[in-house]
Amino acid sequence: MKVQKCPLITNPHDPRFRSLRFLQTPRGRSETGQYVIEGIRHLARAVHQQASIQSVFFEPSVLVNPFGQKLARQLRRRGVPAMRLTLSLYMRLTLAAEPQGIGATLRQQWTTTSRLHVGPNTIWLALESIESPGNLGTIIRTAEAAGVEGIFLLGEQGDPYHPAAVRASMGSLFAQRLIRCSVREFADWARSNGVCIVGSSPGGLMDYKGLRYSWPAALLVGSEKKGLSELATETARFVVRIPMHGHCDSVNVAVATGVVLFEMSSQRAIP
Amino acid sequence: MKVQKCPLITNPHDPRFRSLRFLQTPRGRSETGQYVIEGIRHLARAVHQQASIQSVFFEPSVLVNPFGQKLARQLRRRGVPAMRLTLSLYMRLTLAAEPQGIGATLRQQWTTTSRLHVGPNTIWLALESIESPGNLGTIIRTAEAAGVEGIFLLGEQGDPYHPAAVRASMGSLFAQRLIRCSVREFADWARSNGVCIVGSSPGGLMDYKGLRYSWPAALLVGSEKKGLSELATETARFVVRIPMHGHCDSVNVAVATGVVLFEMSSQRAIP
Repeated sequence: MKVQKCPLITNPHDPRFRSLRFLQTPRGRSETGQYVIEGIRHLARAVHQQASIQSVFFEPSVLVNPFGQKLARQLRRRGVPAMRLTLSLYMRLTLAAEPQGIGATLRQQWTTTSRLHVGPNTIWLALESIESPGNLGTIIRTAEAAGVEGIFLLGEQGDPYHPAAVRASMGSLFAQRLIRCSVREFADWARSNGVCIVGSSPGGLMDYKGLRYSWPAALLVGSEKKGLSELATETARFVVRIPMHGHCDSVNVAVATGVVLFEMSSQRAIP
Repeated sequence: MKVQKCPLITNPHDPRFRSLRFLQTPRGRSETGQYVIEGIRHLARAVHQQASIQSVFFEPSVLVNPFGQKLARQLRRRGVPAMRLTLSLYMRLTLAAEPQGIGATLRQQWTTTSRLHVGPNTIWLALESIESPGNLGTIIRTAEAAGVEGIFLLGEQGDPYHPAAVRASMGSLFAQRLIRCSVREFADWARSNGVCIVGSSPGGLMDYKGLRYSWPAALLVGSEKKGLSELATETARFVVRIPMHGHCDSVNVAVATGVVLFEMSSQRAIP
Protein backbone atom coordinates (compact mmCIF):
# COMPACT_ATOMS: atom_id res chain seq x y z
CA MET A 1 0.00 0.00 0.00
CA LYS A 2 1.44 3.29 -1.13
CA VAL A 3 0.51 5.17 2.05
CA GLN A 4 2.96 3.08 4.05
CA LYS A 5 5.96 4.45 2.18
CA CYS A 6 6.69 7.38 4.42
CA PRO A 7 8.78 7.99 7.52
CA LEU A 8 7.70 6.23 10.70
CA ILE A 9 8.05 8.42 13.77
CA THR A 10 8.71 6.41 16.92
CA ASN A 11 10.47 8.90 19.20
CA PRO A 12 8.47 11.57 21.07
CA HIS A 13 11.52 13.84 20.79
CA ASP A 14 11.57 13.61 17.01
CA PRO A 15 11.29 17.22 15.79
CA ARG A 16 8.49 16.24 13.39
CA PHE A 17 6.38 14.91 16.23
CA ARG A 18 7.28 17.84 18.46
CA SER A 19 6.19 20.25 15.76
CA LEU A 20 2.74 18.56 15.70
CA ARG A 21 2.48 18.89 19.48
CA PHE A 22 3.62 22.51 19.22
CA LEU A 23 0.62 23.27 16.99
CA GLN A 24 -1.65 22.17 19.83
CA THR A 25 -0.41 25.16 21.85
CA PRO A 26 -1.47 28.81 21.35
CA ARG A 27 2.17 29.81 20.86
CA GLY A 28 2.74 27.09 18.28
CA ARG A 29 -0.25 28.21 16.25
CA SER A 30 0.58 31.89 16.40
CA GLU A 31 4.30 31.43 15.57
CA THR A 32 3.73 29.10 12.62
CA GLY A 33 0.34 30.25 11.32
CA GLN A 34 -0.62 26.57 11.09
CA TYR A 35 -2.96 24.25 12.99
CA VAL A 36 -3.89 20.58 13.36
CA ILE A 37 -7.07 18.83 12.27
CA GLU A 38 -8.07 15.27 13.04
CA GLY A 39 -10.48 12.68 11.75
CA ILE A 40 -11.68 11.50 8.36
CA ARG A 41 -14.69 13.79 8.11
CA HIS A 42 -12.64 16.90 8.87
CA LEU A 43 -9.88 15.92 6.47
CA ALA A 44 -12.31 15.09 3.66
CA ARG A 45 -13.99 18.45 4.13
CA ALA A 46 -10.59 20.21 4.10
CA VAL A 47 -9.74 18.53 0.79
CA HIS A 48 -13.16 19.40 -0.63
CA GLN A 49 -12.83 23.06 0.40
CA GLN A 50 -9.28 23.17 -1.00
CA ALA A 51 -7.89 24.17 2.37
CA SER A 52 -4.13 24.53 2.44
CA ILE A 53 -2.96 21.11 3.70
CA GLN A 54 0.72 21.17 4.72
CA SER A 55 1.23 17.60 5.86
CA VAL A 56 -0.71 14.49 6.77
CA PHE A 57 -0.07 12.02 9.62
CA PHE A 58 -1.63 8.66 10.35
CA GLU A 59 -1.41 5.45 12.33
CA PRO A 60 -2.16 2.50 10.01
CA SER A 61 -3.58 0.14 12.67
CA VAL A 62 -6.15 2.75 13.71
CA LEU A 63 -6.87 3.99 10.19
CA VAL A 64 -9.07 1.03 9.23
CA ASN A 65 -11.79 2.97 7.41
CA PRO A 66 -11.34 2.40 3.62
CA PHE A 67 -12.46 5.94 2.78
CA GLY A 68 -9.88 7.30 5.23
CA GLN A 69 -7.19 5.10 3.70
CA LYS A 70 -8.10 6.32 0.23
CA LEU A 71 -7.91 9.92 1.42
CA ALA A 72 -4.40 9.31 2.76
CA ARG A 73 -3.31 7.78 -0.56
CA GLN A 74 -4.83 10.65 -2.56
CA LEU A 75 -2.99 13.25 -0.51
CA ARG A 76 0.31 11.39 -0.84
CA ARG A 77 -0.12 11.14 -4.61
CA ARG A 78 -0.56 14.89 -4.70
CA GLY A 79 2.79 15.21 -2.97
CA VAL A 80 1.58 16.23 0.47
CA PRO A 81 4.32 15.25 2.96
CA ALA A 82 3.15 12.32 5.09
CA MET A 83 4.34 10.60 8.24
CA ARG A 84 3.36 7.52 10.15
CA LEU A 85 3.16 7.67 13.93
CA THR A 86 3.41 4.76 16.32
CA LEU A 87 0.23 4.02 18.21
CA SER A 88 1.55 5.52 21.43
CA LEU A 89 2.57 8.77 19.73
CA TYR A 90 -0.73 8.98 17.89
CA MET A 91 -2.64 8.53 21.13
CA ARG A 92 -0.67 11.36 22.72
CA LEU A 93 -1.77 13.63 19.92
CA THR A 94 -5.42 12.78 19.50
CA LEU A 95 -8.26 14.48 21.33
CA ALA A 96 -10.94 12.24 19.81
CA ALA A 97 -12.96 9.86 21.95
CA GLU A 98 -12.89 7.41 19.04
CA PRO A 99 -9.69 8.18 17.13
CA GLN A 100 -9.77 7.47 13.41
CA GLY A 101 -6.04 7.30 12.85
CA ILE A 102 -5.56 10.28 10.53
CA GLY A 103 -4.95 14.01 10.77
CA ALA A 104 -3.23 16.86 9.02
CA THR A 105 -1.57 20.20 9.50
CA LEU A 106 -3.10 23.14 7.66
CA ARG A 107 -2.21 26.74 7.07
CA GLN A 108 -4.50 29.19 8.87
CA GLN A 109 -6.50 31.37 6.53
CA TRP A 110 -7.12 34.90 7.62
CA THR A 111 -8.32 37.71 5.46
CA THR A 112 -8.51 41.48 5.90
CA THR A 113 -11.37 43.97 5.70
CA SER A 114 -9.96 45.45 2.49
CA ARG A 115 -10.34 42.12 0.70
CA LEU A 116 -14.01 41.61 1.58
CA HIS A 117 -16.71 42.05 -1.01
CA VAL A 118 -19.90 43.24 0.65
CA GLY A 119 -22.92 42.16 -1.40
CA PRO A 120 -26.23 44.03 -0.93
CA ASN A 121 -27.98 41.18 0.81
CA THR A 122 -25.23 39.71 2.99
CA ILE A 123 -25.04 38.66 6.64
CA TRP A 124 -21.86 39.02 8.68
CA LEU A 125 -20.93 38.07 12.22
CA ALA A 126 -18.64 39.77 14.73
CA LEU A 127 -17.54 38.08 17.94
CA GLU A 128 -16.03 39.89 20.89
CA SER A 129 -13.86 37.72 23.15
CA ILE A 130 -15.63 34.35 23.03
CA GLU A 131 -13.85 32.43 25.79
CA SER A 132 -14.71 28.78 25.18
CA PRO A 133 -13.14 27.29 22.03
CA GLY A 134 -16.05 24.80 21.92
CA ASN A 135 -18.54 27.66 21.78
CA LEU A 136 -16.44 29.42 19.14
CA GLY A 137 -16.34 26.31 16.94
CA THR A 138 -20.08 25.73 17.37
CA ILE A 139 -20.71 29.35 16.36
CA ILE A 140 -18.52 28.97 13.24
CA ARG A 141 -20.55 25.88 12.26
CA THR A 142 -23.83 27.70 12.91
CA ALA A 143 -22.68 30.75 10.95
CA GLU A 144 -22.04 28.70 7.82
CA ALA A 145 -25.45 27.04 8.15
CA ALA A 146 -27.13 30.44 8.47
CA GLY A 147 -25.34 31.81 5.41
CA VAL A 148 -22.87 34.17 7.09
CA GLU A 149 -20.30 35.63 4.65
CA GLY A 150 -17.47 36.20 7.11
CA ILE A 151 -16.66 36.25 10.82
CA PHE A 152 -14.85 39.11 12.55
CA LEU A 153 -12.93 38.26 15.69
CA LEU A 154 -12.64 41.51 17.58
CA GLY A 155 -9.52 41.91 19.73
CA GLU A 156 -6.97 39.26 20.60
CA GLN A 157 -9.17 36.66 22.34
CA GLY A 158 -10.83 33.65 20.76
CA ASP A 159 -8.73 31.26 18.65
CA PRO A 160 -10.75 29.53 15.91
CA TYR A 161 -7.78 27.22 15.30
CA HIS A 162 -7.75 25.86 18.86
CA PRO A 163 -8.21 22.06 18.60
CA ALA A 164 -11.56 22.18 20.45
CA ALA A 165 -12.83 24.96 18.16
CA VAL A 166 -11.71 23.04 15.08
CA ARG A 167 -13.56 19.94 16.29
CA ALA A 168 -16.77 21.79 17.13
CA SER A 169 -16.77 23.66 13.80
CA MET A 170 -17.24 20.30 12.02
CA GLY A 171 -15.38 21.53 8.96
CA SER A 172 -17.18 24.87 8.60
CA LEU A 173 -13.90 26.53 9.52
CA PHE A 174 -12.42 25.71 6.10
CA ALA A 175 -15.26 27.48 4.29
CA GLN A 176 -15.37 30.62 6.38
CA ARG A 177 -13.73 33.99 5.86
CA LEU A 178 -12.08 35.01 9.15
CA ILE A 179 -10.96 38.53 9.96
CA ARG A 180 -9.10 39.50 13.13
CA CYS A 181 -9.35 43.23 13.83
CA SER A 182 -10.15 45.85 16.44
CA VAL A 183 -13.66 47.05 17.29
CA ARG A 184 -12.81 50.37 15.64
CA GLU A 185 -11.63 48.74 12.43
CA PHE A 186 -14.81 46.66 12.31
CA ALA A 187 -16.96 49.74 12.86
CA ASP A 188 -15.09 51.63 10.11
CA TRP A 189 -15.55 48.72 7.69
CA ALA A 190 -19.27 48.54 8.50
CA ARG A 191 -19.78 52.27 8.04
CA SER A 192 -17.91 52.53 4.78
CA ASN A 193 -19.79 49.52 3.37
CA GLY A 194 -23.23 50.48 4.62
CA VAL A 195 -23.43 47.44 6.91
CA CYS A 196 -26.02 47.73 9.68
CA ILE A 197 -24.52 46.45 12.96
CA VAL A 198 -27.03 44.70 15.25
CA GLY A 199 -25.82 43.83 18.74
CA SER A 200 -27.23 40.87 20.68
CA SER A 201 -27.38 41.18 24.44
CA PRO A 202 -29.68 40.09 27.29
CA GLY A 203 -29.97 43.82 28.02
CA GLY A 204 -31.04 44.74 24.46
CA LEU A 205 -34.13 46.92 24.14
CA MET A 206 -35.75 45.24 21.12
CA ASP A 207 -37.11 41.74 20.72
CA TYR A 208 -34.91 40.04 18.08
CA LYS A 209 -38.08 39.05 16.21
CA GLY A 210 -39.55 42.53 16.25
CA LEU A 211 -36.75 44.10 14.24
CA ARG A 212 -36.94 44.38 10.44
CA TYR A 213 -33.27 43.82 9.71
CA SER A 214 -31.81 45.96 6.96
CA TRP A 215 -29.12 44.64 4.64
CA PRO A 216 -26.24 44.13 4.53
CA ALA A 217 -26.22 43.36 8.27
CA ALA A 218 -23.68 42.23 10.86
CA LEU A 219 -24.65 40.52 14.09
CA LEU A 220 -22.39 41.49 16.99
CA VAL A 221 -22.07 39.09 19.94
CA GLY A 222 -20.11 39.40 23.20
CA SER A 223 -18.35 37.01 25.53
CA GLU A 224 -19.99 34.32 27.68
CA LYS A 225 -19.41 36.10 30.98
CA LYS A 226 -19.15 39.78 30.20
CA GLY A 227 -21.33 40.12 27.11
CA LEU A 228 -20.63 43.06 24.81
CA SER A 229 -18.21 45.77 25.90
CA GLU A 230 -19.43 49.34 26.00
CA LEU A 231 -17.13 50.20 23.10
CA ALA A 232 -18.61 47.43 20.94
CA THR A 233 -22.19 48.22 21.96
CA GLU A 234 -21.72 51.81 20.79
CA THR A 235 -21.00 50.63 17.26
CA ALA A 236 -24.43 48.93 16.99
CA ARG A 237 -27.42 50.63 15.39
CA PHE A 238 -29.78 48.33 17.35
CA VAL A 239 -29.30 45.96 20.25
CA VAL A 240 -31.72 43.04 20.31
CA ARG A 241 -32.51 40.54 23.04
CA ILE A 242 -34.12 37.11 23.10
CA PRO A 243 -37.10 37.20 25.47
CA MET A 244 -36.56 34.76 28.35
CA HIS A 245 -38.94 32.74 30.49
CA GLY A 246 -38.29 31.33 33.95
CA HIS A 247 -35.33 32.49 35.97
CA CYS A 248 -32.97 32.56 32.99
CA ASP A 249 -31.26 35.80 32.17
CA SER A 250 -29.37 34.33 29.25
CA VAL A 251 -28.77 31.23 27.18
CA ASN A 252 -25.50 29.73 25.95
CA VAL A 253 -23.75 32.15 23.57
CA ALA A 254 -23.74 29.67 20.65
CA VAL A 255 -27.46 29.01 21.11
CA ALA A 256 -28.23 32.74 21.30
CA THR A 257 -26.14 33.42 18.18
CA GLY A 258 -27.96 30.63 16.33
CA VAL A 259 -31.41 31.87 17.34
CA VAL A 260 -30.75 35.42 16.10
CA LEU A 261 -28.77 34.40 12.98
CA PHE A 262 -31.51 32.06 11.73
CA GLU A 263 -34.11 34.80 12.31
CA MET A 264 -31.96 37.17 10.23
CA SER A 265 -31.42 34.47 7.62
CA SER A 266 -35.15 33.77 7.30
CA GLN A 267 -36.08 37.45 7.03
CA ARG A 268 -33.61 37.85 4.23
CA ALA A 269 -35.09 34.92 2.35
CA ILE A 270 -38.49 36.64 2.20
CA PRO A 271 -38.09 39.80 0.09
CA MET B 1 -17.50 31.89 62.06
CA LYS B 2 -20.26 29.33 62.43
CA VAL B 3 -19.57 27.60 59.11
CA GLN B 4 -16.23 26.34 60.44
CA LYS B 5 -17.89 24.17 63.10
CA CYS B 6 -18.21 21.01 61.10
CA PRO B 7 -16.07 17.95 60.43
CA LEU B 8 -12.86 18.47 58.50
CA ILE B 9 -12.19 15.68 56.03
CA THR B 10 -8.49 15.15 55.41
CA ASN B 11 -8.30 11.53 54.25
CA PRO B 12 -9.24 10.56 50.68
CA HIS B 13 -10.43 7.20 52.03
CA ASP B 14 -12.87 8.84 54.42
CA PRO B 15 -16.29 7.39 53.49
CA ARG B 16 -17.83 10.87 53.40
CA PHE B 17 -15.34 12.00 50.78
CA ARG B 18 -15.65 8.74 48.89
CA SER B 19 -19.42 9.14 48.76
CA LEU B 20 -18.94 12.57 47.11
CA ARG B 21 -16.62 11.03 44.53
CA PHE B 22 -19.10 8.19 44.01
CA LEU B 23 -21.74 10.73 42.96
CA GLN B 24 -19.46 11.82 40.14
CA THR B 25 -19.89 8.36 38.58
CA PRO B 26 -22.98 7.13 36.67
CA ARG B 27 -23.32 4.19 39.07
CA GLY B 28 -23.10 6.42 42.13
CA ARG B 29 -25.86 8.67 40.82
CA SER B 30 -28.14 5.84 39.82
CA GLU B 31 -27.70 3.90 43.07
CA THR B 32 -28.22 6.86 45.38
CA GLY B 33 -30.57 9.05 43.35
CA GLN B 34 -28.36 11.98 44.31
CA TYR B 35 -25.88 14.23 42.50
CA VAL B 36 -23.27 16.91 43.10
CA ILE B 37 -23.40 20.60 42.26
CA GLU B 38 -20.61 23.10 42.54
CA GLY B 39 -20.14 26.84 42.71
CA ILE B 40 -21.89 29.74 44.37
CA ARG B 41 -24.23 30.57 41.51
CA HIS B 42 -25.49 27.00 41.23
CA LEU B 43 -25.93 26.62 44.97
CA ALA B 44 -27.76 29.95 45.30
CA ARG B 45 -30.11 28.92 42.51
CA ALA B 46 -30.71 25.52 44.17
CA VAL B 47 -31.66 27.28 47.41
CA HIS B 48 -33.89 29.71 45.55
CA GLN B 49 -35.66 26.89 43.70
CA GLN B 50 -36.05 24.91 46.93
CA ALA B 51 -34.13 21.99 45.47
CA SER B 52 -33.60 19.15 47.90
CA ILE B 53 -30.13 19.85 49.32
CA GLN B 54 -28.76 16.85 51.23
CA SER B 55 -25.38 18.15 52.34
CA VAL B 56 -22.95 20.98 51.69
CA PHE B 57 -19.15 20.86 51.44
CA PHE B 58 -16.61 23.65 51.28
CA GLU B 59 -12.97 24.61 51.53
CA PRO B 60 -12.65 27.82 53.59
CA SER B 61 -9.45 29.13 51.97
CA VAL B 62 -11.04 28.94 48.50
CA LEU B 63 -14.48 30.14 49.62
CA VAL B 64 -13.51 33.80 49.85
CA ASN B 65 -16.65 35.28 48.29
CA PRO B 66 -18.77 36.84 51.09
CA PHE B 67 -22.03 35.85 49.39
CA GLY B 68 -20.80 32.25 49.17
CA GLN B 69 -19.79 32.32 52.84
CA LYS B 70 -23.21 33.64 53.80
CA LEU B 71 -24.87 30.87 51.78
CA ALA B 72 -22.83 28.24 53.65
CA ARG B 73 -23.87 29.74 57.00
CA GLN B 74 -27.54 29.89 55.98
CA LEU B 75 -27.58 26.23 54.99
CA ARG B 76 -25.87 25.17 58.22
CA ARG B 77 -28.37 27.15 60.30
CA ARG B 78 -31.14 25.27 58.52
CA GLY B 79 -29.53 22.04 59.68
CA VAL B 80 -28.07 20.90 56.36
CA PRO B 81 -25.14 18.56 57.15
CA ALA B 82 -21.86 20.26 56.25
CA MET B 83 -18.26 19.19 55.89
CA ARG B 84 -14.98 20.94 55.31
CA LEU B 85 -12.52 19.47 52.85
CA THR B 86 -8.79 20.06 52.76
CA LEU B 87 -7.58 21.95 49.71
CA SER B 88 -6.13 18.84 48.11
CA LEU B 89 -9.38 16.88 48.52
CA TYR B 90 -11.43 19.79 47.26
CA MET B 91 -9.24 20.08 44.18
CA ARG B 92 -9.74 16.40 43.45
CA LEU B 93 -13.46 16.94 43.44
CA THR B 94 -13.88 20.16 41.52
CA LEU B 95 -14.33 20.38 37.77
CA ALA B 96 -14.35 24.18 37.73
CA ALA B 97 -11.61 26.14 36.00
CA GLU B 98 -11.91 28.72 38.78
CA PRO B 99 -13.16 26.80 41.83
CA GLN B 100 -15.24 28.79 44.29
CA GLY B 101 -14.79 26.51 47.27
CA ILE B 102 -18.35 25.35 47.80
CA GLY B 103 -20.67 22.61 46.58
CA ALA B 104 -23.54 20.42 47.67
CA THR B 105 -25.21 17.08 47.17
CA LEU B 106 -28.82 17.13 46.03
CA ARG B 107 -31.57 14.61 45.56
CA GLN B 108 -32.47 14.03 41.89
CA GLN B 109 -35.99 15.09 41.05
CA TRP B 110 -37.81 12.96 38.54
CA THR B 111 -41.50 13.03 37.87
CA THR B 112 -43.86 10.73 35.95
CA THR B 113 -46.28 11.33 33.10
CA SER B 114 -49.26 10.75 35.40
CA ARG B 115 -48.26 13.72 37.55
CA LEU B 116 -48.00 16.23 34.70
CA HIS B 117 -50.63 18.90 34.22
CA VAL B 118 -50.90 19.75 30.53
CA GLY B 119 -52.16 23.31 30.12
CA PRO B 120 -53.77 24.29 26.80
CA ASN B 121 -50.93 26.51 25.70
CA THR B 122 -47.88 24.63 26.87
CA ILE B 123 -44.57 23.64 25.23
CA TRP B 124 -42.80 20.36 26.07
CA LEU B 125 -39.52 18.87 24.96
CA ALA B 126 -38.53 15.25 24.36
CA LEU B 127 -34.91 14.19 23.87
CA GLU B 128 -33.84 10.88 22.42
CA SER B 129 -30.35 9.73 23.42
CA ILE B 130 -28.45 13.01 23.64
CA GLU B 131 -24.84 11.82 23.99
CA SER B 132 -22.90 14.81 25.23
CA PRO B 133 -23.72 15.87 28.80
CA GLY B 134 -22.63 19.41 27.89
CA ASN B 135 -25.20 19.52 25.08
CA LEU B 136 -27.85 18.08 27.40
CA GLY B 137 -27.18 20.74 30.05
CA THR B 138 -27.20 23.52 27.44
CA ILE B 139 -30.55 22.21 26.15
CA ILE B 140 -32.01 22.18 29.69
CA ARG B 141 -30.94 25.82 30.12
CA THR B 142 -32.38 26.77 26.72
CA ALA B 143 -35.64 24.93 27.47
CA GLU B 144 -36.24 26.97 30.61
CA ALA B 145 -35.53 30.20 28.73
CA ALA B 146 -38.00 29.23 25.99
CA GLY B 147 -40.72 28.40 28.52
CA VAL B 148 -40.73 24.60 28.26
CA GLU B 149 -42.93 22.93 30.93
CA GLY B 150 -41.08 19.63 31.19
CA ILE B 151 -38.39 17.54 29.49
CA PHE B 152 -38.85 13.88 28.54
CA LEU B 153 -35.70 11.76 28.34
CA LEU B 154 -36.60 8.87 26.08
CA GLY B 155 -34.79 5.61 26.79
CA GLU B 156 -31.85 5.06 29.09
CA GLN B 157 -29.27 7.43 27.58
CA GLY B 158 -28.57 11.01 28.60
CA ASP B 159 -27.97 11.81 32.27
CA PRO B 160 -29.06 15.34 33.23
CA TYR B 161 -27.28 14.91 36.58
CA HIS B 162 -23.88 14.26 35.00
CA PRO B 163 -21.50 16.94 36.38
CA ALA B 164 -20.96 18.45 32.91
CA ALA B 165 -24.72 18.60 32.29
CA VAL B 166 -25.30 20.21 35.68
CA ARG B 167 -22.65 22.85 34.93
CA ALA B 168 -23.99 23.65 31.46
CA SER B 169 -27.58 23.89 32.69
CA MET B 170 -26.58 26.92 34.79
CA GLY B 171 -29.18 26.12 37.42
CA SER B 172 -32.10 25.54 35.05
CA LEU B 173 -31.98 21.89 36.10
CA PHE B 174 -33.49 22.73 39.49
CA ALA B 175 -36.52 24.38 37.92
CA GLN B 176 -37.28 21.76 35.32
CA ARG B 177 -39.67 18.81 35.41
CA LEU B 178 -37.80 15.75 34.16
CA ILE B 179 -39.47 12.54 33.01
CA ARG B 180 -37.59 9.38 32.02
CA CYS B 181 -39.77 7.07 29.92
CA SER B 182 -39.93 5.03 26.74
CA VAL B 183 -40.86 6.41 23.32
CA ARG B 184 -44.15 4.52 23.55
CA GLU B 185 -45.00 5.95 26.96
CA PHE B 186 -44.25 9.46 25.68
CA ALA B 187 -46.44 8.91 22.61
CA ASP B 188 -49.29 7.60 24.79
CA TRP B 189 -49.02 10.62 27.10
CA ALA B 190 -49.07 12.99 24.12
CA ARG B 191 -52.07 11.31 22.52
CA SER B 192 -54.15 11.18 25.68
CA ASN B 193 -53.39 14.83 26.44
CA GLY B 194 -53.85 16.16 22.92
CA VAL B 195 -50.20 17.19 22.65
CA CYS B 196 -48.98 17.71 19.08
CA ILE B 197 -45.53 16.11 18.65
CA VAL B 198 -43.22 17.96 16.27
CA GLY B 199 -39.98 16.23 15.36
CA SER B 200 -36.85 18.18 14.40
CA SER B 201 -34.48 16.58 11.93
CA PRO B 202 -32.20 17.68 9.07
CA GLY B 203 -34.36 15.39 6.92
CA GLY B 204 -37.65 17.03 7.94
CA LEU B 205 -39.99 18.02 5.13
CA MET B 206 -41.23 21.34 6.50
CA ASP B 207 -39.33 24.54 7.20
CA TYR B 208 -39.54 25.07 11.00
CA LYS B 209 -40.76 28.62 10.31
CA GLY B 210 -43.43 27.56 7.87
CA LEU B 211 -45.39 25.49 10.39
CA ARG B 212 -48.22 27.00 12.43
CA TYR B 213 -47.64 25.06 15.62
CA SER B 214 -50.76 23.89 17.42
CA TRP B 215 -50.93 23.75 21.20
CA PRO B 216 -50.09 22.06 23.46
CA ALA B 217 -46.96 21.01 21.54
CA ALA B 218 -43.91 18.86 22.19
CA LEU B 219 -40.66 19.26 20.28
CA LEU B 220 -38.89 15.94 19.73
CA VAL B 221 -35.12 15.95 19.14
CA GLY B 222 -32.71 13.08 18.40
CA SER B 223 -29.09 12.32 19.19
CA GLU B 224 -26.05 14.18 17.85
CA LYS B 225 -24.90 11.44 15.54
CA LYS B 226 -27.94 9.38 14.70
CA GLY B 227 -30.73 11.92 14.90
CA LEU B 228 -34.24 10.62 15.59
CA SER B 229 -34.91 6.89 15.52
CA GLU B 230 -37.55 5.58 13.18
CA LEU B 231 -39.71 4.65 16.16
CA ALA B 232 -39.57 8.18 17.56
CA THR B 233 -40.10 9.80 14.15
CA GLU B 234 -43.32 7.82 13.72
CA THR B 235 -44.80 9.44 16.83
CA ALA B 236 -44.47 12.94 15.30
CA ARG B 237 -47.33 14.64 13.49
CA PHE B 238 -44.84 16.86 11.64
CA VAL B 239 -41.09 16.78 11.18
CA VAL B 240 -39.48 20.17 10.66
CA ARG B 241 -36.01 21.11 9.48
CA ILE B 242 -33.89 24.23 9.72
CA PRO B 243 -32.88 25.30 6.20
CA MET B 244 -29.09 25.22 5.83
CA HIS B 245 -26.67 27.20 3.70
CA GLY B 246 -23.18 26.20 2.64
CA HIS B 247 -22.01 22.62 3.01
CA CYS B 248 -23.67 22.14 6.41
CA ASP B 249 -26.15 19.35 6.76
CA SER B 250 -26.78 20.07 10.43
CA VAL B 251 -25.92 22.35 13.33
CA ASN B 252 -25.11 21.46 16.93
CA VAL B 253 -28.11 19.77 18.60
CA ALA B 254 -28.39 22.40 21.35
CA VAL B 255 -28.33 25.21 18.77
CA ALA B 256 -30.96 23.45 16.62
CA THR B 257 -33.16 22.86 19.66
CA GLY B 258 -32.86 26.52 20.64
CA VAL B 259 -33.69 27.78 17.16
CA VAL B 260 -36.89 25.71 16.91
CA LEU B 261 -37.96 26.20 20.56
CA PHE B 262 -37.71 29.99 20.37
CA GLU B 263 -39.72 29.94 17.12
CA MET B 264 -42.40 27.90 18.88
CA SER B 265 -42.23 30.17 21.91
CA SER B 266 -42.68 33.30 19.82
CA GLN B 267 -45.60 31.87 17.84
CA ARG B 268 -47.32 31.02 21.09
CA ALA B 269 -46.86 34.56 22.36
CA ILE B 270 -48.85 35.95 19.42
CA PRO B 271 -52.40 34.60 19.67
